[in-house]
Amino acid sequence: MKIYLTPGPSENYFVVEEAIKEALQKKITAISHRSKEFKAIFGNTTNQLRELLEIPADFSIAFTGSANEIWERILQSCVEKESFHLINGSFSKKFYHFAKQLNLNPSKYEVDFSKGFGVENINVPNSAELIAVIQNETSSGVQFPIENIAKIREKNKEKLIVVDAVSSLPYANLDFSIIDSVYFSVQKGFGVPAGLGVWIYNQKMVDKAKSLQEKGKSTGTYHSLLELDKYAQNNQTPETPNVLEIFVLGKVIEAMNKKGIAMIRRETDYKAELLYHTLEQSEFLSPLITEKSQRSKTVIVANVEKGTSSDVIAFLEKKGIIIGKGYGSFKDSQIRIANFPTHSKELMEQVADFLMEYGK
Amino acid sequence: MKIYLTPGPSENYFVVEEAIKEALQKKITAISHRSKEFKAIFGNTTNQLRELLEIPADFSIAFTGSANEIWERILQSCVEKESFHLINGSFSKKFYHFAKQLNLNPSKYEVDFSKGFGVENINVPNSAELIAVIQNETSSGVQFPIENIAKIREKNKEKLIVVDAVSSLPYANLDFSIIDSVYFSVQKGFGVPAGLGVWIYNQKMVDKAKSLQEKGKSTGTYHSLLELDKYAQNNQTPETPNVLEIFVLGKVIEAMNKKGIAMIRRETDYKAELLYHTLEQSEFLSPLITEKSQRSKTVIVANVEKGTSSDVIAFLEKKGIIIGKGYGSFKDSQIRIANFPTHSKELMEQVADFLMEYGK
Repeated sequence: MKIYLTPGPSENYFVVEEAIKEALQKKITAISHRSKEFKAIFGNTTNQLRELLEIPADFSIAFTGSANEIWERILQSCVEKESFHLINGSFSKKFYHFAKQLNLNPSKYEVDFSKGFGVENINVPNSAELIAVIQNETSSGVQFPIENIAKIREKNKEKLIVVDAVSSLPYANLDFSIIDSVYFSVQKGFGVPAGLGVWIYNQKMVDKAKSLQEKGKSTGTYHSLLELDKYAQNNQTPETPNVLEIFVLGKVIEAMNKKGIAMIRRETDYKAELLYHTLEQSEFLSPLITEKSQRSKTVIVANVEKGTSSDVIAFLEKKGIIIGKGYGSFKDSQIRIANFPTHSKELMEQVADFLMEYGK
Repeated sequence: MKIYLTPGPSENYFVVEEAIKEALQKKITAISHRSKEFKAIFGNTTNQLRELLEIPADFSIAFTGSANEIWERILQSCVEKESFHLINGSFSKKFYHFAKQLNLNPSKYEVDFSKGFGVENINVPNSAELIAVIQNETSSGVQFPIENIAKIREKNKEKLIVVDAVSSLPYANLDFSIIDSVYFSVQKGFGVPAGLGVWIYNQKMVDKAKSLQEKGKSTGTYHSLLELDKYAQNNQTPETPNVLEIFVLGKVIEAMNKKGIAMIRRETDYKAELLYHTLEQSEFLSPLITEKSQRSKTVIVANVEKGTSSDVIAFLEKKGIIIGKGYGSFKDSQIRIANFPTHSKELMEQVADFLMEYGK
């Protein structure tokens, strides 16, 4: 049986199969999304998430089909004219591109693929209403150190700050007092089958959406932030949602809460250190990111210096390990390895040993 | 164990549990949506659907999160100023409302909840670009006879015609030569867990979206028709999709193809006739729709003439049968019963017997 260390979708979290079985036995896929049973499921999943990430009471949680959808909904609901984007890889660039497609006038601070941002160089135009921070760029494995978000907030007290933590949660230990929104998709750090985006947002986001609506701007339809929020306040969704995955996500987070977020973070640190150390020791592979503070703990990217990524991937596949290739134009020259809570220490130690054998 | 005859979500189709098991065993939830394996899954599901519904080659198929989403994407991608809507219930009204929310100027032909349309009274303004036909209104159980779509087409040769068959497929036997698009959500007639909308569209829809984009109108982002179509042509999706359900839907349709669509339609006719006959015979229940040609075969709605809907629902629940209440303001006075392919003849015969006992 192959084990997936691809950076999302990845290996399911260990309780997923059992949770799906339970859902089918209880026929939760047949219940109405207006029923008490559904509200209880919605409530459990969001409460478990609140506990896991220590989300303050003034933040709410809504579900979409994907993180891509959340990019779109943020722009439609909360930006009248100008969003500002930090870009250092394919996904942060895509969010910026969405703003263009919606006929907004986004501005940006862009550095080369895989580079970090010098936080002192980030100058947000006064006209920008919202700052899109890429906390963990899945394409290049660069993390934006969380303490730097505070520095952006200091200089931009009034603007909305939204954080893309698609592939770093639940590891990322965010300070909710300095951000307005954060979002992720379930198939990465949470190890749940793809098809659900999770959007955490505060009242300031909702107020901005209200003000745009009052001005006559179209802020969307069934999944505008205002519609999502109206139903979320009642543990519901505007449309018939992906009930099965909302249920399964709740069960996964329950298991994570039992383990404890501190332990999950410690293990992630240990496994990341092990992998980066291995890449530094390898003659034939090297960490893409040289600056240690900018290295993602959850998506580890390496340059392949002997052969191509296909060679490394084939080498590991023979041993039952599936990793990802580099993103986009780096697909031949780089590999990407996920380091999610589902990936055990023992597994990572084995992967590290295999990586050391590569090329010999 | 309770059996759900709610009009979506409803009872799963009988192969769903096995299909999910197979998906988990094969770890298809971990595969990349850019992989050959995923393309094969996408290709299988769409090919099975083509076979089942006899979809011509000039139509393509894309996946969204829900049918609500398809309403929005149709309007964003294919309407510059004015859509025209047939309205006779809550869902067709919601589609119209979406157009308002998107700052379009929709026009409509509206009849009372549960009434059919006199096709000769349907006058579409010249200025309307697209006609939204509600083929089966899930809230009221009215069907729009399929032959009437041809009459609309005759008078509106150039306009786009999109058909809402959310709760009537695969039963509805559509003539694709006279429509431009049709869509459904999987949790109704297909008996698949909710979280997936299926959008079938032709080149004329795509061409319209292109022309709007060329004019500088924003037609959306990752799920604009043009983006969806670009990826669909390569058996892919723009974002990481709900791979599990695309796989499961394929397995469900495979099973339906083995049974044969003709048999599924015959059985649906038989079960519908049985239920309507029962409602006519009952002293305490009566069919909401009096005109037989307008009675939905897949969502059967009845007035409750003794007690309230809760009484009927509680009566059936004691026997292990779950049905739906009326929609919106009719929640107390009406019941709704799904008649989907997952509901066997034997089950329906039992339900009919129970209904005859109600009130005695």
